Formats: sequence, C-alpha cells, structure tokens
Amino acid sequence: MSAFPLQPGSTIGIVGGGQLGRMLALAAARLGLRVAVLAREEGSPAGQVSAVELVGRYDDPAAVAKLAAISQAVTFEFENIPAAVLAAVGDTPIAPPAQALAVSQDRVEEKSFLNAHGLPTTPFAAIDSAADIAPALARLGAPALLKTRREGYDGKGQAWVNRTDEAEAAFAAIGARPAILEAKAPFVRELSVIAARGRDGETAVYPLGENHHEGGILRTTLAPAVVEQAVADEALRIATTLLAALGYVGVIGVELFQLADGTLLVNEFAPRVHNTGHWTLDGCEVDQFENHIRAVAGWPLGPTHALARTEMTNLLGAEAHDWPRLAADPAARLWLYGKREAAPGRKMGHVNRLSPL
Amino acid sequence: MSAFPLQPGSTIGIVGGGQLGRMLALAAARLGLRVAVLAREEGSPAGQVSAVELVGRYDDPAAVAKLAAISQAVTFEFENIPAAVLAAVGDTPIAPPAQALAVSQDRVEEKSFLNAHGLPTTPFAAIDSAADIAPALARLGAPALLKTRREGYDGKGQAWVNRTDEAEAAFAAIGARPAILEAKAPFVRELSVIAARGRDGETAVYPLGENHHEGGILRTTLAPAVVEQAVADEALRIATTLLAALGYVGVIGVELFQLADGTLLVNEFAPRVHNTGHWTLDGCEVDQFENHIRAVAGWPLGPTHALARTEMTNLLGAEAHDWPRLAADPAARLWLYGKREAAPGRKMGHVNRLSPL
Repeated sequence: MSAFPLQPGSTIGIVGGGQLGRMLALAAARLGLRVAVLAREEGSPAGQVSAVELVGRYDDPAAVAKLAAISQAVTFEFENIPAAVLAAVGDTPIAPPAQALAVSQDRVEEKSFLNAHGLPTTPFAAIDSAADIAPALARLGAPALLKTRREGYDGKGQAWVNRTDEAEAAFAAIGARPAILEAKAPFVRELSVIAARGRDGETAVYPLGENHHEGGILRTTLAPAVVEQAVADEALRIATTLLAALGYVGVIGVELFQLADGTLLVNEFAPRVHNTGHWTLDGCEVDQFENHIRAVAGWPLGPTHALARTEMTNLLGAEAHDWPRLAADPAARLWLYGKREAAPGRKMGHVNRLSPL
Repeated sequence: MSAFPLQPGSTIGIVGGGQLGRMLALAAARLGLRVAVLAREEGSPAGQVSAVELVGRYDDPAAVAKLAAISQAVTFEFENIPAAVLAAVGDTPIAPPAQALAVSQDRVEEKSFLNAHGLPTTPFAAIDSAADIAPALARLGAPALLKTRREGYDGKGQAWVNRTDEAEAAFAAIGARPAILEAKAPFVRELSVIAARGRDGETAVYPLGENHHEGGILRTTLAPAVVEQAVADEALRIATTLLAALGYVGVIGVELFQLADGTLLVNEFAPRVHNTGHWTLDGCEVDQFENHIRAVAGWPLGPTHALARTEMTNLLGAEAHDWPRLAADPAARLWLYGKREAAPGRKMGHVNRLSPL
C-alpha cells in the first residue's frame, strides 16, 4: 500500500498511451512525479514523455500487474478496462475507483445509477433483443436512440429508431448486442462539466463548457459557457452528487443536455479526464490533467476558475497538417499529440483560443 | 541537414538533463515534437520526460555526436560546452549558434563583444596574473570584482578586491586562473530581459523581470518589472541588438544592472533559457521554453506579453520539502524538477504566484 500524499519522485502508472495519458504525464512532470505508462505500441504519445513505457494490451492482467508493480498509484486514460484487469493492480491503489468504471461501462447501469441518486437523464429502456424495441418505443416515443450497452464512442454503435418496423434493422446495425433505447432528449445545447474529487473528499468543479459535435465527434468546446446562475448551480449539484455517490477520486467528465426550460439531463459521464476539458490547459491556472494527478496522488486540488474565455477546437485527421498556420497565429495555443498517422477523424491535437472573460 | 520548419514528430536533441532540459522537453511535447536528451545519469530530470535518454558526458564529442545522429536539431541547457564538442554535431543544425556560446563562455570576450555593438557594461580589465590587478584597480576604482574569465556561476569563482594588497589573495581565491576585473556597478536593482530570435530573424522580447539574489543565487523574479518606458525601450534595444549581432536562434537571458539615473548596463548574457524567465511558465501564453523550441525547430515565435504579474521564487535545497503547503496554496503554481537529492542551494523547483496586471 502507498502512503498518501505521494511524495515527489513517486511513480504514477497510467493505463493507456494516448493523448490523455500524454497530457496527464506532462502534468505529473510539473509536480515532480514520475510516470510509467502501459501502451499498446512503443513510442506512444504518452510514452514519449514518460520515464517508463511498458508495451502490452490493456486487457492483459499480467501487463497491468507489471505496471502496478512499479507504481505507487495507478490511473487510466480510458474507461473500457475489464474489471478483471483492474483487479490485477493488487495492493497498488487505483483511481478513479473500479465502481466508477463498472457503472460507466454499461449505459443501462449508468443511467440507473444516476437516477437512483436524483440525477435526471432522458427516459430509457434496456434492450436485450429486437423484440424489446417495439414496446420500449411505444413508451419512450419516436424517434429513440438505440446504443450498445457497452463500448462505443464518438457516435459508433448507435442507430436511430423512427418506427417499430425499423427495430430489426437497428438492432442488427449495432451488432445485435445488449442495448439501451433512449428517448430523444429535446435539448437546445450540449454542455459538460469537468470536476475533481480528492482522496479527502474535497471537490473542485470547473465552469461549464458548451460543446459542438460533428459526425458524433467533438468539434469545439466554449468555456465558460454563458448560462444562467440556476443552470450553473444545477451542474454543480450534479457533479458533486455524482462524485460523492461514486466515492470518486480523480477528474470526471459529465456530459449534459440542456432543455429549452433550462433543465439539465445527464447524457453520460466518463471516469477520466475528458476532451471537453482541454480548454482548461490554457484557460485555467490548474488544468484538468494536473487536478487529476493531484487527486490520484492524494494531493490537495488546485483552483478551477477560468482565467479567460476559451474556445477549444479539435484537430481531426489531416486538419493537423494545418499546424504551420496555427503555430503562426498569436491567438492560437496549439497542442499536438505526437501521433504518427493522421487517419481520418483521429484526434491529432487541439487549439485553444483565449479571449477576456 | 534538416529542413525547417521541423515537422511534428521530429526529434530535438538536448545536451543536458537538468531542469531547463526538462522544461524544454515539456514544451516540445506540447508542440508534438520528440525529445532526446544527453544526461550525465539515467533518470535525469529531463530524461524522465523525454522519448530518448542517452547517458554520457557533455564534454565527450562521441556522446554529443550520438545525440546529434538521432536528432533533427540540437540545443543545450547550459553554456559551458567546449567548442570542440559542439563541432561533433556534424551536419545536424545546432542552436543557439556556436558563436554565442563561445562569446558567453569568456567574460572578457563577452563584455568586449557587447561594447563593440554599442551595449554598455561596467568598465573592466583582463587579468592574466596577480600583477595585473593593481593597475586595473587604479583605473577601475575600488572595490572591484575579480571573476574567472571562464566558468563559475551563482557567485562561484568570484572575489572582491578592495585594496591593492588584496590582489594576490583574491587571485589565489579564484584559482589563479585567467580573470576579469570589473568595476563595481552602482546599480539600484538587477533586471533581466528574456528574448527569442527565430531562424528567420524574427525577434520576440518578454517584459523585464526584476531579480533578487541571495548568496549569489537567484531567489525571486518579479515580472513585468515596474519600469519607466525609456528603460523598457532600452532593454528592448539591448536584446534585439544582441540577438542580431550574434546571429542568434533561440532564447537568450540578458542580465542587466539599472543605475540610479535609469541607465542599463549589461552584466552578462546566457545563451539559453534562463532561471529569471521561469515566471513566463504561468505568466504568459507562450513561455520561454516553448519559444526556444519554436526557434530551434524553425517555427514562428509565440506572443511574449504578460497575462498577469508574476512572482517567481526558487525552491532551494530543503525548501522543496515545503511542497505540501505550496501545493495546498491556491495562489501558488508549483513546479518540481524531479531531482532526488535536495542538496543545500540546489534548485529543486520554483513557485509562481500570479496577481492581476
């Protein structure tokens, strides 16, 4: 077992070698902490900036055990890690907690958990076969969104169901797997709240971000979002309630739908640092990555207020080839992730543009 | 030869594994550039956050050649690299240029170069033996400061000479080596200017810092220093003149003495990122490390204006043990360098405290 707070020079193990792991490693470095990463390939975005890079599969308990053995605490950059693999860390503390992973990995569990703690979501139904869709659609109203219960991200594994006679095709389209049918949320905009909880239960919540997606992939986040105080208060309630209910340690990203009357519904949460929190890298004194590392290491959290209004734009695929223009733009803070191949839709970097609050 | 600008994914080689190399590596990572460092020991502060860490001596041409062979450009974190070693980089471009290193390595050359380009310094004399001191002291006035021509930093290798009969002892105290005798500059405060020059000759100059030393070691920098416009203008002239005269590429740190009438004298310059520029890490959109990397990589420079008034305080030796209190202080931005042993006076980290401009 590790004693918290971890001393400078301690090693944080990160499962995952992508851009989130990379930015976590950079944050750990500022605080004098060492990082070891478990990456699928040598020279990963995170491995390039870490003291140790282990190469292995994230679903291999032996690989995770090896990481844990050289770490004083373990965290992860993505949530689709099997529970059996998490158990492989043994005595090494892991954060965020396994429960948060388990709940977030299953969309029915996730929404049930949220509702059970007084956090509103769109109405939904569990779908185990195509035959379940018709009665659920009758209850939820059409159109409704069919998603796999597990995995799927950036719009993958989803299909809209407009009429009962589309049930079979929709179920087949998502791979005929256990699913959730969600009532269409009549939202006017998508918001997200990034929040942190320390090992002592202290919480810190960033201002809301307003998110715009294209083709199911995040395009921009504007933060702080311009919202009425009641909306900000409700987002704060949602974040702090969820963090406490999960016994959480680390940073969480909570995606919200804002309805026309101002009501907020929780769409989903991610038990990790979040793309919609990248604006904090330049818009805040302490960004989401540093606060995640602080929480994982048992350190006090840092301030989360905004220093500037920030527009974060993802650089997808070949858009990153535009780096010379962006590097020359004095208003653009450029972040590139060290990925070799700019496959279409792949998150290659992002740009933050600041303006006065 | 490398083609500039270097593409993301290119490797920057850094000679030196300390905290300056570490912060350069973190800056390179933001821009999607890989880093290889040459460090004296494995697990160095810079090596912990770099893709490649070579272990070797900085004065070993073979070690530097090995670094250059895997790099598209080479830079360094400290200026005491022998010219013969620099030649070992072969065709790999090195920045800042060798001339800047050569000039800055010899205090007589340095002041002569500055004066030759219209940049004022305190009066000085070259000292080759103890016998040279008496006539020089008569010309310069007492007391005067005897320093070795080469090496020496943070107040080491220096001795004050108050009277002619102290000449022998002072010369012995600095190791009886070629030296410089400098007239005491009647300064009212110490300032520094951090500036960058790109491969295309573009320059960018940060606001002045006001520096306070203790025991010859930098204690704090306050930036932007509160100065009259004429002083700021003169600092800008000094920085841009020096950068152009040296055909410079990269960030330079220029230490200045301000006299009672506002006159600025150049004390010395360091052809590298500089401790008195650490405030830019939190006080500017683009810090000195990123601008150095941009220049070395042939990228356009980033903005250098201050976002906040910043007080930088070095954490020396055991002062770094105070990290729990500093981490809990919402007004303190803490940087720790990943060094294992907190030897007395050793720079272990620093803290930036921001306040509105």
